[in-house]
Amino acid sequence: MLDLSQTVIRALRSVLPGGNIALHEPRFSGNEWNYVKECLDTGWVSSVGKFVDRFERDLAEYTGVNHAVATVNGTAALHICLKLAGVGRNDEVIVPTLTFVATANAVDYCGAIPHFVDSSKISLGVDPSKLQDYLGDILEVREDGSFNKLTGRRVKALVAMHTFGHPVDLDAIVEVCDRFGLALVEDAAESLGSFYKGRHTGNWGKLSSLSFNGNKVITTGGGGAILTNDADLAKLAKHLTTTAKIPHKWSFSHDMIGYNYRLPNINAAVGCAQLEQLPGFIENKRKLAGKYIGIFSAIDGVTLFEEPSYAESNYWLHSLILDKENMHKRDDLLEATNADGLMTRPSWTLMHRLDIYKSCPRMDDLSLAEDIERRLINIPSSSFLGADA
Amino acid sequence: MLDLSQTVIRALRSVLPGGNIALHEPRFSGNEWNYVKECLDTGWVSSVGKFVDRFERDLAEYTGVNHAVATVNGTAALHICLKLAGVGRNDEVIVPTLTFVATANAVDYCGAIPHFVDSSKISLGVDPSKLQDYLGDILEVREDGSFNKLTGRRVKALVAMHTFGHPVDLDAIVEVCDRFGLALVEDAAESLGSFYKGRHTGNWGKLSSLSFNGNKVITTGGGGAILTNDADLAKLAKHLTTTAKIPHKWSFSHDMIGYNYRLPNINAAVGCAQLEQLPGFIENKRKLAGKYIGIFSAIDGVTLFEEPSYAESNYWLHSLILDKENMHKRDDLLEATNADGLMTRPSWTLMHRLDIYKSCPRMDDLSLAEDIERRLINIPSSSFLGADA
Repeated sequence: MLDLSQTVIRALRSVLPGGNIALHEPRFSGNEWNYVKECLDTGWVSSVGKFVDRFERDLAEYTGVNHAVATVNGTAALHICLKLAGVGRNDEVIVPTLTFVATANAVDYCGAIPHFVDSSKISLGVDPSKLQDYLGDILEVREDGSFNKLTGRRVKALVAMHTFGHPVDLDAIVEVCDRFGLALVEDAAESLGSFYKGRHTGNWGKLSSLSFNGNKVITTGGGGAILTNDADLAKLAKHLTTTAKIPHKWSFSHDMIGYNYRLPNINAAVGCAQLEQLPGFIENKRKLAGKYIGIFSAIDGVTLFEEPSYAESNYWLHSLILDKENMHKRDDLLEATNADGLMTRPSWTLMHRLDIYKSCPRMDDLSLAEDIERRLINIPSSSFLGADA
Repeated sequence: MLDLSQTVIRALRSVLPGGNIALHEPRFSGNEWNYVKECLDTGWVSSVGKFVDRFERDLAEYTGVNHAVATVNGTAALHICLKLAGVGRNDEVIVPTLTFVATANAVDYCGAIPHFVDSSKISLGVDPSKLQDYLGDILEVREDGSFNKLTGRRVKALVAMHTFGHPVDLDAIVEVCDRFGLALVEDAAESLGSFYKGRHTGNWGKLSSLSFNGNKVITTGGGGAILTNDADLAKLAKHLTTTAKIPHKWSFSHDMIGYNYRLPNINAAVGCAQLEQLPGFIENKRKLAGKYIGIFSAIDGVTLFEEPSYAESNYWLHSLILDKENMHKRDDLLEATNADGLMTRPSWTLMHRLDIYKSCPRMDDLSLAEDIERRLINIPSSSFLGADA
C-alpha cells in the first residue's frame, strides 16, 4: 500500500505534466514583447510613460476601484497605503500572524508596531468574530482614537490580507473596523482576480495594495499598485510615490518626504499585456482547482482548501490541508514532492514566532493560524497548468 | 546685438540637431532587445535570474569595487548603504545641501536627521576644507562616537554626492571622515563612469550607491546598486534587499526586518546591455563636453563647468554657470531655451530651503551652494548628442 506522500505525488502527477513543475511561474504569451519593444524603441522605459498610465486605468477598470497608482512592488504599495491611512510612529496596526513578512514590515516602515491576530478557517485570513471579541477586551475607544489598554498605544488600522487569494469576510471585517474606529487596509497582494460577493477585493479598504511579483497571478517582473476609491488619497499616493515633487516645467522642489516608488514604464508594459490575459489565467486557475478538488476528495488524509462560499477566488496558490492525524507527515510530504520535481512549500512561519516580531503585541490564542502552519502545504498553481490540453 | 538667451540658444544649436532636445534621454541600440526577449521567453523576469547576477558581476568589474548588489532604484540603494554604515534612529548624517532630495530622504528613512553642509566650487560636492573647520567647531569626538555639541545627537556618517558626475575630492574627504570618526557613504547615483585619480568613484565609501533611473548615464528603467569592497557588508546588503529571508528549500523565515529592494531580472537585462555600451556613452559625453567648452569659452557671460583637475568625469549633466553679473538672467535663459525646444533646468532647490528639511541642523554659511543654485543651469546632455555625425 502507498504511503501518503506517494499517494499525493500520484494524484498530482495525474493532472500535471511530467518533469519539474514550479510552484507558480508566469507565462508571457500575449502582447508582452510588442509592448516592451515599443518602450525600447521609443526610449520610454522609466517612470513616465504611456504604459504606466494605461496600466493604472486598466487596473481600475478590472477591479472596479476608482483609482490605481502603480508602484515598484507590493510592499511599497502597502507602505504608502498605511501612511495614507494615518498610521504614524508608535501606532499599532492589527495584522494577521499568518501572512508573508512584508505585511508586518510595511507596518514597521511607518515606525508603527504590528499587533498579531488569528485567522479564520473559512478564509485563512483575519477571523472577524474572534477579532471583535478580542478588540472588545483590549481596546479603549475614545474620541481621539482607539487605544490598547495594555500598551497605551493608539491602534490605528487593520490590514486584512486575502490569503492565497481567498477573500476574508469583508462585510464582517468592515463592521469590526467601524465599531472600533480602525482604518481598513486590504493587503490584496495575492487576490487580483478574487471577488467577494461579486465585487473585486480591494473595494472595501480605505486603501488596498496589489502585487505583481514574479510569483503572482500576473507579473510585471516586480511591481505593485495602490487602489482607492478616494480621489484625494489617490492623488496623494501618486505624489508620495514620485518623490513628492511639486509639478513645474523645470524647478525641483518637494513638499513632503516622498519615495522613489513609481513603477517603471517597461514593467508597466509587461503588466498591460499580462492584464489582457488575466481573465483566462483566472479561468485556468479555477479549472485546476476543480481538478484538484475532484482528485483529492477521493484521497484520505488530505483536503484541498476551497474558496469561502461568499467568494469567487483566484486560487492564487492551491493549498492542501493535512488531516490532524497526518500533520506529523508534513515535512515528509514536502521532502517527497520536491524530490519528485513537484515544487511544494508550507505556509509562512507565523509572524509572532519570528525573532524580529516576537515581542510585538498579539492575541494569546493564535491556535487556528498555528494549526494551519502545521497542516498546510501549497502545491503547483501556475495558471497554465489548468488549461485544457 | 543678441541678448544672452539668444546667444546661448545659438551656441547650443550649433552642436545640437534641430527640434526638441531632451535634457537627458537613453538610447537602446545594443543588446537590450535580445536580453529582454530572453527573459520573456524563459519566464525569468523577476527577482531571481541570470541577468541580475551578471549585472552585479559586470558592475563590480567596471567600477573595480569588489561587490555590487542590484536594487530597485538608487534611493533604495542609498537607504541600505546608510543602514549598513550603522546609521540609526536620531543619528545625524552630514549631507550636502546641494543635492537631489533622495539623498536627504534616505537619511530620513533610517529615522536619522540630515545635517546640511556647503559645496566646493571645484567639484560642486562637499567642500572638505570647509567641512573640516566646521566639524572641528561643532563636534565632540568621544570614544563612543562623534556628537553634535548643539543637538547632543551622534553624527554617524557623511554622504558624499558626486554632483552631475563630478567627483568630490575623495582623498581629502576620507581624511576628514577618519579624523572625526564618520562613516563615508558615496552617493554615486550620478557618477557611473567617473574616475577620481584614475580609480572609479564608489571605491572610497564604506558603501556606495548607484542609480540607473531613466535619466542616468545608463538605465534599467528604474534601478540602482550598492557597491562595497567588504564581503560581509555585501552579503548583508543582499540579505536586507531580499526581505532577509533565510535560505531554505521551502521554509519561509526571516531574521531581520528586510526590504523588497531587489532589481527584477528584466530590468537587469536592460542594464547588462546598457553597460556593454557605457564606455562609448562616456566617450560621447566627454566629446560633447569638449564641444560645449569650446563654444562657450568664446561667449561672454557664461562658462561651462569643467571637471576637477584630479578627476575624469562622466559629465552626466553638463552645466552652464552664469557670471555673477548675469545671474538675474537665469530664469529668462531657462524660459527662452525651453521655449526653443532645448530642455534646460536649474539645480535642485537646496535641501535646507525645503519646508520638509528647513528645521534640520546646517552650516550657517552655505554660500557656495546658494550661489550655484542661482547661477547654474543644466543643458542637454544625452550621450548620443556627442557622437560624431
